[in-house]
Amino acid sequence: MAACCIGIDLGGTFIKLGLLDRQLAVTAQDRRPTPAAGGQAVIDAMADAAEDLLASAGVRKSDAAGVGIGSPGPLDLDAGVIIGTPNIPGLRGVALREELTRRLGLPAALDNDANLAALGEFLVGSGRDVRHMVLLTLGTGVGSGIVVDGELLHGGHGIGAEVGHMIVRPGGRPCGCGQRGCLEQYASAGHLARHARRMIEDEGRGGRLADVLAEKGDLDARDVQQAAAAGDPTARRAWDEAVAALADACVSLARVLDPDLIVIGGGMAAAGEALMGPLREQYRGRHWTLTHPRTDLALASLGNDAGVIGAAAAAWRRFG
Amino acid sequence: MAACCIGIDLGGTFIKLGLLDRQLAVTAQDRRPTPAAGGQAVIDAMADAAEDLLASAGVRKSDAAGVGIGSPGPLDLDAGVIIGTPNIPGLRGVALREELTRRLGLPAALDNDANLAALGEFLVGSGRDVRHMVLLTLGTGVGSGIVVDGELLHGGHGIGAEVGHMIVRPGGRPCGCGQRGCLEQYASAGHLARHARRMIEDEGRGGRLADVLAEKGDLDARDVQQAAAAGDPTARRAWDEAVAALADACVSLARVLDPDLIVIGGGMAAAGEALMGPLREQYRGRHWTLTHPRTDLALASLGNDAGVIGAAAAAWRRFG
Repeated sequence: MAACCIGIDLGGTFIKLGLLDRQLAVTAQDRRPTPAAGGQAVIDAMADAAEDLLASAGVRKSDAAGVGIGSPGPLDLDAGVIIGTPNIPGLRGVALREELTRRLGLPAALDNDANLAALGEFLVGSGRDVRHMVLLTLGTGVGSGIVVDGELLHGGHGIGAEVGHMIVRPGGRPCGCGQRGCLEQYASAGHLARHARRMIEDEGRGGRLADVLAEKGDLDARDVQQAAAAGDPTARRAWDEAVAALADACVSLARVLDPDLIVIGGGMAAAGEALMGPLREQYRGRHWTLTHPRTDLALASLGNDAGVIGAAAAAWRRFG
Repeated sequence: MAACCIGIDLGGTFIKLGLLDRQLAVTAQDRRPTPAAGGQAVIDAMADAAEDLLASAGVRKSDAAGVGIGSPGPLDLDAGVIIGTPNIPGLRGVALREELTRRLGLPAALDNDANLAALGEFLVGSGRDVRHMVLLTLGTGVGSGIVVDGELLHGGHGIGAEVGHMIVRPGGRPCGCGQRGCLEQYASAGHLARHARRMIEDEGRGGRLADVLAEKGDLDARDVQQAAAAGDPTARRAWDEAVAALADACVSLARVLDPDLIVIGGGMAAAGEALMGPLREQYRGRHWTLTHPRTDLALASLGNDAGVIGAAAAAWRRFG
């Protein structure tokens, strides 16, 4: 009987990987930089890292049930092929599932990185006691995965669960996807920081956040949140806009999907209760007269490991 | 082997019902007014109508596999109990599933009326060739049902698939549900007509739609659409707002659920291509650079029969 599955989380900066037993406990893990050359170098690095991890853990390949791979997308899930990856060059059209199967001699499961992070949080993280869950990862953009009755929602073409591109501010900020007013433009750590910086540069009013920007040369979401908490009016406006957009999205998700839980992770979630407090307040403040809001909101609990855990879990579900 | 299932669609105005064979062909149907007294009178009328329909069709009760009931909600699906019905008095807390089972001596399945209409359209209507579908019924309000991989989406508490209460215009028109900017306030036939009437009364500018209102004493969605098509500026503004809100909702649904098809029914859909043409144009006009919009839009094809067909289908799925 197989002793482990390998989970690989392919990111723009790092390839993270782990060995997980059937109970989804991480028994070994590693990470290495994603080769900037992209393409074949990335595939080689993934395969080498997996071989090395097995070797260093003293696990024979015959004791591994399979490998799960979380990749940025969009992906063609049926074919196991990458349609495009904005942050890693040279992977467009690559049959990643087949390549890894061939290189490792193990069956491989491929899914969207955000979906697999959701599966990880669902199985062993904040969602471990529920059946219906949404994960929103508020990082550079907004990644998301949706679990309906225990299964990942993929949709008819494998491109569902893109909550970051729900239109929450019609006619609002232009998004890289070509739409306007996408959630991602308001509630991602990356866009919040970028927007706050632009507000400071446009308004030229000074203040605490302007001082941080002058000192560091850049801003992150935490800077904005802390300056907002300290009363900086520009930071306050930017932060409140982010929370309001996120609350609207959570209401719409609750209405459409009625999940037991919406889990919030990523850089924005580092603010902890400074985010969740006002978010819950606004979310609950949209009174529903016919039915009470029954979807809870919670912080993610697996941090950066969710993707690796979910990737291995997908392999266990498929090949275990 | 059972020859039929009974489908009952409980509405605020009519109780509609039908006998359907295993292929979901309607072999007999009837409708009668929903008793204004509500409560027990409604349950009696449903049971009597079902008995009468079986008798008039010459079907013995032992040849019926079960009865499916579509009810306005919200419902407690696990318990088979009505939580509330805004348009029918005296049904709050009623164990409708158990009552009908007892009265008819047949197993009963209970679900939300909009969900069962979606199941009907999915199985034998516009969605019959797809696996993932959303039905939006643009009537008095916006009813909706969601099919994911062949199954109705109910969510964690049985109150999902309320697309009419997605927030599409943040801070916008107040909704009966307690929120602001719900899709229902913009894209339902009822609210469109009501809003257009208010625009005429507030602006007092006259014009074709004002003439229709003066003549009929009221407006419906079709009046607004026809006046818009004839160039009436007030009607045009109201109609365009409705189509834009609906297009935004379709984009968000495609991003979140990635269905094969979004099906549009109800009073607004009576406009046919006058609705679908501009809707498709706006929906496709929100360019997506990474992935093309792959969710199609189509008119519903079962009209008012969708609910009865879906109700019987739910009984077949459960008891067949």
